[in-house]
Amino acid sequence: MPRWEPNAVGRLHDAAIELFTEQGYDQTTVAQIAERAGLTERTFFNHFANKRDVLFGRTSELHKQVVAREVAACPAGTPPLQAVLHGLQAAGDEVLEELRIPASRRREIIDATPELREREEAKRAALTATIAAALRERGLDGDAALLTAGIGLLIQQTAEQRWVQPSEKRPLRELLAEALSSLRTVLGTAAG
Amino acid sequence: MPRWEPNAVGRLHDAAIELFTEQGYDQTTVAQIAERAGLTERTFFNHFANKRDVLFGRTSELHKQVVAREVAACPAGTPPLQAVLHGLQAAGDEVLEELRIPASRRREIIDATPELREREEAKRAALTATIAAALRERGLDGDAALLTAGIGLLIQQTAEQRWVQPSEKRPLRELLAEALSSLRTVLGTAAG
Repeated sequence: MPRWEPNAVGRLHDAAIELFTEQGYDQTTVAQIAERAGLTERTFFNHFANKRDVLFGRTSELHKQVVAREVAACPAGTPPLQAVLHGLQAAGDEVLEELRIPASRRREIIDATPELREREEAKRAALTATIAAALRERGLDGDAALLTAGIGLLIQQTAEQRWVQPSEKRPLRELLAEALSSLRTVLGTAAG
Repeated sequence: MPRWEPNAVGRLHDAAIELFTEQGYDQTTVAQIAERAGLTERTFFNHFANKRDVLFGRTSELHKQVVAREVAACPAGTPPLQAVLHGLQAAGDEVLEELRIPASRRREIIDATPELREREEAKRAALTATIAAALRERGLDGDAALLTAGIGLLIQQTAEQRWVQPSEKRPLRELLAEALSSLRTVLGTAAG
């Protein structure tokens, strides 16, 4: 048994996606995921607390960190929503773009499984809180920070919905900018 | 035993809020809720499937119906987001405003209980789908309908967060309009 397994997290993630798709989430065990990935259960539990985490653990922490880092790194005076878009785009490039092919299958598995939908919701709430905190650090007040973070999440969700479509080839970065632009159009056509 | 109990649904809802606050959601039984409301368990189950439903059954269906009805009733040519704001305001007036006092306690109970948060999330998803369907009926295309519905939900959440604060006395109708206006400001200050 090798003492170091290259890309164990990625292999476990991909094996889980395959098995959840083939035989369903509820029917899949951690032992099967480890076996499919050519790793031990022990290695699985070195990286994830349970089979639910394997769909989220790889990306959600990292995604949040990149968004927070990039929002903080924008020059003083950058409009808050612009900073949020920049953060989401950077995290798209660094964290999500390489997962593009499994992302649509991952989406189907989550939508079909209540306990995964709940985890997804918790992830969204955590990302909203992270963005709001990063904006408050930049001097935005609490209400505006929360609303701007909410817009950020709406942009992220809208863009991701397109991004996971097999026919959609543009990078997430571009779809995020497009979602913000559509949002402006929708708001602009509503007479005050 | 009376054959007709006036406002049974409201009494059960208020009794549940009291008991969930006093002794916690998990520790409260349907029998206790019925007893506190001065009704039988049988009456409880005539109205709700379980104790989780008692926090949602009273309002969520009705709220959705009023939003859909009012979005549909807007004159042709009303900008979509304006129609959504109108629908949310009408539903605020008709359904939510009278629940204002228990609303803040209800919020705390939901936030503290994962299975209620999940139900809340399902409720939000259903409201989003209802609004999007009402907009498509008005001729909006699928993507714009979804995005506009998403903005509607963001406005609803932002306004409700304020509305449940004990110090906030303005009606939900006004807070909804304010949330839309803040949203425009946030988007307007972000250089494209």
